[in-house]
Amino acid sequence: MKQVFNEIKIKTNGQGLYDFTKETISWVKEQKISNGILNINILHTSASLLIQENADPDVLHDIKFFFDKIAPMNNKLYTHTTEGKDDMPAHIKSSLTNNQLTLSIKNKDLILGTWQGLYLFEHRLEKHTRVLSHHIIGD
Amino acid sequence: MKQVFNEIKIKTNGQGLYDFTKETISWVKEQKISNGILNINILHTSASLLIQENADPDVLHDIKFFFDKIAPMNNKLYTHTTEGKDDMPAHIKSSLTNNQLTLSIKNKDLILGTWQGLYLFEHRLEKHTRVLSHHIIGD
Amino acid sequence: MKQVFNEIKIKTNGQGLYDFTKETISWVKEQKISNGILNINILHTSASLLIQENADPDVLHDIKFFFDKIAPMNNKLYTHTTEGKDDMPAHIKSSLTNNQLTLSIKNKDLILGTWQGLYLFEHRLEKHTRVLSHHIIGD
Repeated sequence: MKQVFNEIKIKTNGQGLYDFTKETISWVKEQKISNGILNINILHTSASLLIQENADPDVLHDIKFFFDKIAPMNNKLYTHTTEGKDDMPAHIKSSLTNNQLTLSIKNKDLILGTWQGLYLFEHRLEKHTRVLSHHIIGD
Repeated sequence: MKQVFNEIKIKTNGQGLYDFTKETISWVKEQKISNGILNINILHTSASLLIQENADPDVLHDIKFFFDKIAPMNNKLYTHTTEGKDDMPAHIKSSLTNNQLTLSIKNKDLILGTWQGLYLFEHRLEKHTRVLSHHIIGD
Repeated sequence: MKQVFNEIKIKTNGQGLYDFTKETISWVKEQKISNGILNINILHTSASLLIQENADPDVLHDIKFFFDKIAPMNNKLYTHTTEGKDDMPAHIKSSLTNNQLTLSIKNKDLILGTWQGLYLFEHRLEKHTRVLSHHIIGD
């Protein structure tokens, strides 16, 4: 059994979904592990992870819009307001989506559907560098 | 360490929750792995996975109703409308629930609570065949 | 490859977020496994798991408030009402958050962000003892 760890950093420039499928797949292919489990954790609670459709960009637009509507940037709704109007909605959106994704690797390929992409969902307005821990266990 | 992969296909006939606990447990018991991690991924973004109560069917009814209310099938709310009034709500419901579940296997049994079942949550109106990747790593 | 299983029990006293980060980290450090995958499953469907900010308690307050608003304790909204006004909202909140978390262990430490804590999210009003299955695979 082998294990390997890595951090992939994604620079974000405001709210929205950032596709990191290529970065992850290309790192997986470089490792000397053919089959195993890939665990991805985002080390933040104001940005999150999603597996979503990689075909029509309108899907990503509508997803962003839905989460903005359900957790609006309106300080009157929240107690935690010291970090800006986007911070508490960010924590809520993070709670509604994922902090981590666990994927399977078979013959050096991620098991994903044809239309599935891996997305970092940035919930803050300012620029950030987000750290995604990657860890494979397999052989 | 051993690994084994499988695809379980579930036929769906409209929106709702489909229990696949028996299919998964029966496949797990057939494998020559007593203890390990089971990773289940649904290879679609318009259907998703849930662990929910397996006792009162009213719970499943109310869950379906809740998600319909929060993400209504109303094209006026969305930009992505070309695949039908149920498609964009399906992507939203998928974002709010799970694309994958990771479970533990101990002595050939899934570690689940007494009242927990594994459900495929179909969000589309038409019939579909949904593919659930199953992958065990253990010994 | 080694595997180890444990159950951590958390006593809850009404709705809210209960931090169990210390219990989990302290158990992980006692095991003879330096690197691996930790899979945590809550064996209930009316309480759930979250990774959230461990700094400002107002964040936890606002998260609890948000989920109460989105899934109100109002029996008129639900079919499943026999177990009390808090039960069906509990199942919905559980569906919106997590039944399980998969984390990475590196050099006997959990890979978590500086501001991330592990929370049990209790959705029921009465006292409960909640069971969290812990399972490590690694070496």
